[in-house]
Amino acid sequence: MDLTDHSGLQQLLEDMIRDTAGEAEKGEVASYIPELARQEKHMLGISVCLVDGTLLSAGDANHSFTLQSISKIFSLMVALCEHGPDYVFQRVGKEPTGDPFNSIIKLETIKPHKPLNPMINAGAIAVAGMIPGASVEERLDKILQLLRKMSGNPDLRVNEKVYQSEKQTADRNRALAYFLKDSGILQGDVEETLDLYFRHCSIDMTTVEVARLAAVLAADGYDARSREQLFPREVARICKTFMITCGMYNASGEFAIDVGIPAKSGVAGGIMAAVPQRMGIGVFGPALDDKGNSVAGVKVLEKLSDRLDLSVF
Amino acid sequence: MDLTDHSGLQQLLEDMIRDTAGEAEKGEVASYIPELARQEKHMLGISVCLVDGTLLSAGDANHSFTLQSISKIFSLMVALCEHGPDYVFQRVGKEPTGDPFNSIIKLETIKPHKPLNPMINAGAIAVAGMIPGASVEERLDKILQLLRKMSGNPDLRVNEKVYQSEKQTADRNRALAYFLKDSGILQGDVEETLDLYFRHCSIDMTTVEVARLAAVLAADGYDARSREQLFPREVARICKTFMITCGMYNASGEFAIDVGIPAKSGVAGGIMAAVPQRMGIGVFGPALDDKGNSVAGVKVLEKLSDRLDLSVF
Amino acid sequence: MDLTDHSGLQQLLEDMIRDTAGEAEKGEVASYIPELARQEKHMLGISVCLVDGTLLSAGDANHSFTLQSISKIFSLMVALCEHGPDYVFQRVGKEPTGDPFNSIIKLETIKPHKPLNPMINAGAIAVAGMIPGASVEERLDKILQLLRKMSGNPDLRVNEKVYQSEKQTADRNRALAYFLKDSGILQGDVEETLDLYFRHCSIDMTTVEVARLAAVLAADGYDARSREQLFPREVARICKTFMITCGMYNASGEFAIDVGIPAKSGVAGGIMAAVPQRMGIGVFGPALDDKGNSVAGVKVLEKLSDRLDLSVF
Amino acid sequence: MDLTDHSGLQQLLEDMIRDTAGEAEKGEVASYIPELARQEKHMLGISVCLVDGTLLSAGDANHSFTLQSISKIFSLMVALCEHGPDYVFQRVGKEPTGDPFNSIIKLETIKPHKPLNPMINAGAIAVAGMIPGASVEERLDKILQLLRKMSGNPDLRVNEKVYQSEKQTADRNRALAYFLKDSGILQGDVEETLDLYFRHCSIDMTTVEVARLAAVLAADGYDARSREQLFPREVARICKTFMITCGMYNASGEFAIDVGIPAKSGVAGGIMAAVPQRMGIGVFGPALDDKGNSVAGVKVLEKLSDRLDLSVF
Repeated sequence: MDLTDHSGLQQLLEDMIRDTAGEAEKGEVASYIPELARQEKHMLGISVCLVDGTLLSAGDANHSFTLQSISKIFSLMVALCEHGPDYVFQRVGKEPTGDPFNSIIKLETIKPHKPLNPMINAGAIAVAGMIPGASVEERLDKILQLLRKMSGNPDLRVNEKVYQSEKQTADRNRALAYFLKDSGILQGDVEETLDLYFRHCSIDMTTVEVARLAAVLAADGYDARSREQLFPREVARICKTFMITCGMYNASGEFAIDVGIPAKSGVAGGIMAAVPQRMGIGVFGPALDDKGNSVAGVKVLEKLSDRLDLSVF
Repeated sequence: MDLTDHSGLQQLLEDMIRDTAGEAEKGEVASYIPELARQEKHMLGISVCLVDGTLLSAGDANHSFTLQSISKIFSLMVALCEHGPDYVFQRVGKEPTGDPFNSIIKLETIKPHKPLNPMINAGAIAVAGMIPGASVEERLDKILQLLRKMSGNPDLRVNEKVYQSEKQTADRNRALAYFLKDSGILQGDVEETLDLYFRHCSIDMTTVEVARLAAVLAADGYDARSREQLFPREVARICKTFMITCGMYNASGEFAIDVGIPAKSGVAGGIMAAVPQRMGIGVFGPALDDKGNSVAGVKVLEKLSDRLDLSVF
Repeated sequence: MDLTDHSGLQQLLEDMIRDTAGEAEKGEVASYIPELARQEKHMLGISVCLVDGTLLSAGDANHSFTLQSISKIFSLMVALCEHGPDYVFQRVGKEPTGDPFNSIIKLETIKPHKPLNPMINAGAIAVAGMIPGASVEERLDKILQLLRKMSGNPDLRVNEKVYQSEKQTADRNRALAYFLKDSGILQGDVEETLDLYFRHCSIDMTTVEVARLAAVLAADGYDARSREQLFPREVARICKTFMITCGMYNASGEFAIDVGIPAKSGVAGGIMAAVPQRMGIGVFGPALDDKGNSVAGVKVLEKLSDRLDLSVF
Repeated sequence: MDLTDHSGLQQLLEDMIRDTAGEAEKGEVASYIPELARQEKHMLGISVCLVDGTLLSAGDANHSFTLQSISKIFSLMVALCEHGPDYVFQRVGKEPTGDPFNSIIKLETIKPHKPLNPMINAGAIAVAGMIPGASVEERLDKILQLLRKMSGNPDLRVNEKVYQSEKQTADRNRALAYFLKDSGILQGDVEETLDLYFRHCSIDMTTVEVARLAAVLAADGYDARSREQLFPREVARICKTFMITCGMYNASGEFAIDVGIPAKSGVAGGIMAAVPQRMGIGVFGPALDDKGNSVAGVKVLEKLSDRLDLSVF
């Protein structure tokens, strides 16, 4: 399909939402905190933002959800912009891992004790620790500023209820953080860095905004709406690479085969996908499969990749 | 650079070989078998085969080396063509791993006990076990037929000396294979499957042939020289995905960031890279870095990707 | 109870067998080979051999069963007598492990790659590799000679059916052995050493003989029947130490707390226990708990330890 | 030697101290906190307390040192006395482990996620969590009361400097504790339980007092000085068992073979050894081997066991 055929594309998105919504039956919403457990299982929304700025949506595209692990991409972007890749990758690795997202084992077995990549929790906490600022608010603001610029929405903010919930059920992440502190990977106050981590995971967004963020990534940092290069091309490439090698938890390899698009999912049901040089996609469907990815969201992306030939391979 | 400017491309390849040959100083040839230890450290050759069939080479492009782990891609192709993806992926996973290529740990810790992916030794041995035939020769012939067709060289064969050496220093692989046998992943005679595995690792090739193989992968199975679709597009996509997520041992993530091309390396110093819809590349430089990848080979590919903008991201 | 009150002791043993036989209901016979699966679940026998040579038995004390892992003590004794502790413990460790008896993980993670102790399969295979001889028969004979001398039964031999069965379902042990070969721990022909290992596991015995073997261990190598010191006191001490720290698989710690006697169990349902300076005990009850120890056997030993105050602690 | 020959025994202790002091050269004092790093490497003291209450000492027997891991025995005793073994062992296991004392791996790999035993840090933190009380002071007081009663010294107290140091370098233990909290093993306030743990590790003592504590353990809870049964025999047995199977870090197996006495060491250089029904021993020598045990302390115990035939095996 020709991407300039906007009405055809719009129709395709609507058909897909209608045909795929039933997939939610096969999954369950996240239940580890009440705020997520309360989400409506059958919602499904998608937004596509072409690299020229054109935006198309279908389904529950205006429903807010928290970024959760999708935010790991943006904390990484801030760290890369602030310190450069050399500094960042001395403290966190570049390699995928077959271990679960919250695993602590490799921190002990691998020498030096650095997290394998910035997409697992240990790595994302290490990255959060690299974001400078005089206070947690100031550090968070660096991420929010980037997200507001990229999405064009100056009102993006943290969902306080989700943040409070996250903070209270965070002992496994706390264990990871203190291990990193003990290994010298994490410096400064551990609780403050965890606080920053829980906050950036709890930023609220819709698929519209996620699609716009992804479109800037797809365009290597260039924002068609503001006609600005928002961050270096190298940063965009690094992020897209992590999205393909470890963006979908322990189903990253499978997703790369079946869909072939750099993508990052979050446990609230969101997925952000960036098709290099073509488009950004935001999907939301809160019912998750056993790997933690949106069941219907993965299905929609698979169909879209197939129909529009979006695979990078 | 315009890929139709063949003389410019030829000059670029020659410049690169000349400027990169010194990198070999930073590595060492593999030493676990005498046949590899004896390789001339400073050799460096490259061949590029465009998807239209145009072939360009520079440096030691006519020197033979054994495929080693590059062959894992072709045994996987045969298994996929013979049985289809569902059968194959019930016995071997699709996910990258942070563990070393010859690690046995995950076979014990992961339930069910299947190897994480077909690019680590355990997975490749499992795949070898899926290649049907009345004898080892017949099974090997399935792989050789594919390679001969893809490369256009009907004379490809196993390097007997390397094969004999491999077979005699194979106890770690033997341990992996018997573990797989115990877990029910591997059926039939273990020693025969190991024999097949050592043989396909020992197939001799030049960068010219590797580039031609890669070009067919790049073109999703279509061979411009014979004007035939040699295998299904899905098989090509699966292989290219594994090449990007786990083709370069424990530096796969780093290579994906720095180079951004699906690639598979072997311990004899070869690298096969497939740029989707554009070209296949074969590189040979026997001095390896500490991850097992050709030092100069990786460097050449990094430069080429940069100059020709080959990254898929 | 005074150990010189033989009739009281005899009565105690008979009472215990009668009262404990029902415990077998809680377990299952080993099923990984037909020869063991076929064992009669409710059998229960015990023999006690005081260090003065007095022998008392109750229940199914004349029923033959294969030593299985109990034989690991005797292969270790032969290796210690042949080479001395320094040689042996350069190749196998002295430390207990929380990993399963057939685990391969620590072989990869621990440097140097030596098995943690001689009671896990990897360690026992390493020990089998140390037993010298021109052939498997000659090597096995060294173990049989020791067992015949210690038990006073010159007819002890390998149960051929069990041996053949073991040999055919041995792929996990084969994986361990080839890993050890690869690490340089195991030298010589792997299949021959495995053959020796399966044979010594398949030696047939009754609780009478096991009790006599244990009595010699209890008496630090002195055999009251022949009035000979059969092996050095140091060898006996080493063996009794391993029996307390890792003789009962992953329930060794629990058994040490509840019973407090050095003991080694086997998957055919036998347990050999040596009460230092007091007595040897052989128990047989083929129904196993989930750790692989005889359910009724453990119970009988617990009661006996309690009644006769046998704990070393 | 006859234990009633007190002057002979006294002479033996003095000879041993003199002959063994040089061993300290082979080790190093702990350096992870300044208070320990500052200890005088060449000190060596020993006290023996027979089960009849007779006390003999030689060398630096009046020098104070902190209990460190030796205190794990006493927090376990309090937990066992307060809750009984069933409660305690639902939350912490009974099995030795080949992993390092501060390892976190098994907490993730073993299901349910309970620490393998109470002698590794994770297990001791879990045990600290079981000690009831309205405040940390009240909980600590339960341990101090027991120690004061057993040692006969009402002035035992926490070394504040060491405690403060421990608390500030505690991130690995904090990681363990939060992991346990996440797994439901640890309840209540994590920082309070860690505080209790650091305090009981920092209790100051001399070898005289350690020997008296050990003598009560040796006598199954009976204190010859007060003529009281201070705790149930079962509690003493459980502790002595853990001392033999996992009291000496990753050299427990080796120590059991070479010395054969239940013992627990601490990183300040102390060792407490309990010879069942015979005597308690306290040793202090701050230079540690690479496993964390007092070099000279282990040597003295080895010689003493040999001379007095103290091995339980």
